[in-house]
Amino acid sequence: MSKYLSDIEIAQQATMKPIANVAKEWGILEDELELYGKYKAKINPEIFDRLKDKPDGKLILVTAINPTPAGEGKSTTTVGLGQALNKIGKKTVIALREPSLGPVFGVKGGAAGGGYAQVVPMEDINLHFTGDFHAITSANNLLSAAIDNHIHQGNKLGIDFNQIVWKRVLDMNDRALREVIVGLGGKSNGYTRQDGFMISVASEVMAVLCLSNDLMDLRERLGKMIVAYNYEGKAVTAAELNVHGAMAMLLKDAIKPNLVQTLENTPALIHGGPFANIAHGCNSIMATKLGLKLGDYLVTEAGFGADLGAEKFLDIKCRYGNLKPSAVVIVATIRALKMHGGVAKADLGQENLEALKAGFVNLQKQVENIRKFGLKALVAVNKFVADTEAEVEQLISLCQEAGINVALNEVWANGGEGGREMAEELVKMVEAGESNFKTLYASEESIPAKVERIVKEIYGGDGVDFTPKAKKEIKKLEELGLDKMPICMAKTQYSLSDNPALLGAPKGFRITVREVRVSAGAGFIVCLTGEVMTMPGLPKVPAAENMDVDKEGKISGLF
Amino acid sequence: MSKYLSDIEIAQQATMKPIANVAKEWGILEDELELYGKYKAKINPEIFDRLKDKPDGKLILVTAINPTPAGEGKSTTTVGLGQALNKIGKKTVIALREPSLGPVFGVKGGAAGGGYAQVVPMEDINLHFTGDFHAITSANNLLSAAIDNHIHQGNKLGIDFNQIVWKRVLDMNDRALREVIVGLGGKSNGYTRQDGFMISVASEVMAVLCLSNDLMDLRERLGKMIVAYNYEGKAVTAAELNVHGAMAMLLKDAIKPNLVQTLENTPALIHGGPFANIAHGCNSIMATKLGLKLGDYLVTEAGFGADLGAEKFLDIKCRYGNLKPSAVVIVATIRALKMHGGVAKADLGQENLEALKAGFVNLQKQVENIRKFGLKALVAVNKFVADTEAEVEQLISLCQEAGINVALNEVWANGGEGGREMAEELVKMVEAGESNFKTLYASEESIPAKVERIVKEIYGGDGVDFTPKAKKEIKKLEELGLDKMPICMAKTQYSLSDNPALLGAPKGFRITVREVRVSAGAGFIVCLTGEVMTMPGLPKVPAAENMDVDKEGKISGLF
Repeated sequence: MSKYLSDIEIAQQATMKPIANVAKEWGILEDELELYGKYKAKINPEIFDRLKDKPDGKLILVTAINPTPAGEGKSTTTVGLGQALNKIGKKTVIALREPSLGPVFGVKGGAAGGGYAQVVPMEDINLHFTGDFHAITSANNLLSAAIDNHIHQGNKLGIDFNQIVWKRVLDMNDRALREVIVGLGGKSNGYTRQDGFMISVASEVMAVLCLSNDLMDLRERLGKMIVAYNYEGKAVTAAELNVHGAMAMLLKDAIKPNLVQTLENTPALIHGGPFANIAHGCNSIMATKLGLKLGDYLVTEAGFGADLGAEKFLDIKCRYGNLKPSAVVIVATIRALKMHGGVAKADLGQENLEALKAGFVNLQKQVENIRKFGLKALVAVNKFVADTEAEVEQLISLCQEAGINVALNEVWANGGEGGREMAEELVKMVEAGESNFKTLYASEESIPAKVERIVKEIYGGDGVDFTPKAKKEIKKLEELGLDKMPICMAKTQYSLSDNPALLGAPKGFRITVREVRVSAGAGFIVCLTGEVMTMPGLPKVPAAENMDVDKEGKISGLF
Repeated sequence: MSKYLSDIEIAQQATMKPIANVAKEWGILEDELELYGKYKAKINPEIFDRLKDKPDGKLILVTAINPTPAGEGKSTTTVGLGQALNKIGKKTVIALREPSLGPVFGVKGGAAGGGYAQVVPMEDINLHFTGDFHAITSANNLLSAAIDNHIHQGNKLGIDFNQIVWKRVLDMNDRALREVIVGLGGKSNGYTRQDGFMISVASEVMAVLCLSNDLMDLRERLGKMIVAYNYEGKAVTAAELNVHGAMAMLLKDAIKPNLVQTLENTPALIHGGPFANIAHGCNSIMATKLGLKLGDYLVTEAGFGADLGAEKFLDIKCRYGNLKPSAVVIVATIRALKMHGGVAKADLGQENLEALKAGFVNLQKQVENIRKFGLKALVAVNKFVADTEAEVEQLISLCQEAGINVALNEVWANGGEGGREMAEELVKMVEAGESNFKTLYASEESIPAKVERIVKEIYGGDGVDFTPKAKKEIKKLEELGLDKMPICMAKTQYSLSDNPALLGAPKGFRITVREVRVSAGAGFIVCLTGEVMTMPGLPKVPAAENMDVDKEGKISGLF
């Protein structure tokens, strides 16, 4: 029966410990803790000084095959694996992204794992939490106001206002703000120009916060962000507008990792949440590093499938954070593998061993990719209620025949207990020997060379084509000396190729890069293979219409 | 020497008590307190149930004469008076508005009292504090997104999109957003229309939060807010869009009063901060009520001079909160009285007893007004360094000759000790007997009748004229049955009239109401006598450019 309770019902039944107790048990000093209510806290970065000589724990990345639109359960697995590792005696902390408020009101409601592998207090985490995203919104929009004000007050920097690349943001799904005209109403309201709003998680400030090693690194990166180009084509940065200090001030608390707990009282660092397409899609470096100091193991996740999420985690985040993962867990579902084997969405409820076998190639390719980074991979079969015994057995056999480590993952239904096998298998792998992690390419390579490596080695394609527009943009970045940074691919998550309809492990395809942008503060070059929606809209009946609060402040309809 | 330290230097030298200790000393239970770091907390409204039988303390309003642009020191006086009352043995809590983030980056920097009468931690209070304004921004913009989405999805309610009165907001000084066009870029981005952004404090959500007695009252008021009119001219509300529940959910923590402390550890409830022109300009009813439960005295303030601030406090806030003030303190400065006596700004530094005497009429009129509400008034002479002994003595004599209670107010320079005389005088007045508070008008009177009362009795004018536009709007409100609410005057704060150049206590003038709007959720009718700027801009060199943070997170340049 219990597995049919809704996520919010399970979460509201949780026995949370006061977060101050969790912190104490895990060696965080009282002075290092800033409480936000009884069940949330920020951790002061001073802790890094105190623990600098303590050896780091093992870093475990949770990623997935190319997913179905419903998602394969990476967050749930991350939470459950953390719980399971603690059950088998390994002190483990997890690190996750913070959810964005905007989508909560759209289709999906909140997100903080699922079933018996959730992070709590889920209502708080899904609403304002500790205010990090609001601080990012403020910092982003202070910069926007400074740009328009600078031009209004005389434009000393010669900003070409047809080349302003910095957009405003709101943490809201609001399609009407995608393309706007600002500065109407005459001279006192500034000059008129076209602008647009993105959802806050798409802000470069978010990516900067997540890739910074400390507050001064954050400040410096904010200063490097390019907001526009001047009439001579030179980049204009936030530092030239002289507001990067004020922006860092606005973010001085947002940069501190947030501590909450799972349903089984495993510490969870939930911090930052950049887009997984135009940014790198993982929680902050600081949260990950903190978890490595607090636990023997730190389990974290990256957005989308492994071809995007793991690649960016390894090539961008690990590079800037000087992180060395010990192993990677690849979440797979029977359902998604059947889709990769050609089954239509409507027929996924039926057993189909042939299709499962055919779709297995996607999983195989993702495992192979992880090994290219010098890392060990463990497949975690995320069991759904509709999966048949025969399907599960076949998938496990397929893995074993291919020499792939595999374990059953039932954390959604059974919490940590349902992840025991997975945890034991993982520990065995990790304790068998050190990993030989290396990034895929050197930052110093040219942009086309770096992208070609990703396409050939990770996606399994034949090569990359750049549109004339993209070529022009690459040339400009080379001239500006901004091409020696890692690549951030923005591609469909549903296929290894740039065509969402090409499932399985396609061959003989090429990738087309249509646009190249630089995030000079975050420190990566975004290569877009298609349109990326940076401001979602609300559906016909927004989830918001079902949400309410009663006189005790208890929330309903959030999930 | 000490009086020449800057506000931030004084604040950073303060010896704050952990806020949990302050709460404990003042009878707040541990379970009623939600910490936000060590020096900020929210208080759970459950406390009202526990204390419902405890008699209320005395409610003291701090207001002022018509001010100069620099302000007369109402917040400083409120803080200092609270400190002083505690010094003379009266358990006193203060309640103030939260500052808005936007103006912090403009000209003025932060605001939380001044000198030795400040509220701390001032950096936190002036930046994100406990996130209330961000929650208000989110709730406001969720409603905006819901409006545009409703129309995009078929417009069942028949919203006339030339009659959408609900605007988007940001807590930022950003002139380019005053008038915008949204929904550009084709059908998938919604329909194209003109819109505008206000600063968040101008949102009706802010006024609603401040006038609600509890969370369910808030929810109901949010539902009543008018967002647009349909093609038949009928009002369309937030409840009809079915997002008032989600908005209340977003505000479930924002509605809880915030507890901080003054430099002398007096408890300070800092909560809400509506505009003082298009809204009523005082902190939340809930904070005020909570202070009355915690202390023998609760000292609070209202924005602008007494003709606007005190009138709205008494006619709007006291009406909805069922509050009964015991006395009113009117802050006066020598400087401003000399301006009312005709001295030019450049000459205010020189002694001028004649001008002081001439300007005294403004103070006299404000005292007379307070007495019309059945309340006792005490004039607090806020002493500035440049004031001469002769000037101070003359002002005190003028008050005494006119039968006005008066006391010297040196809290800026000396903290609570500098307010001892003022506190003693106040207690004497209050203990001499009950006040006979009554509102100025009945809500049931017609809009013109209510405004005429305010103009004749409070401003001292001959009457009120409504423009044809305003008359049309009044007629519409009468038809919609929305005219039986209190009036919220939006008028210059510098004069008793609607002409900022008419200083002193002008006679023989009339007031012109140019526009009439309804805030149906907040529950008042706004009468505008001129243009009100609801989105400020940044100056040539924004204060933001001087702000920074160091590696320990210490802020500079905020004040």
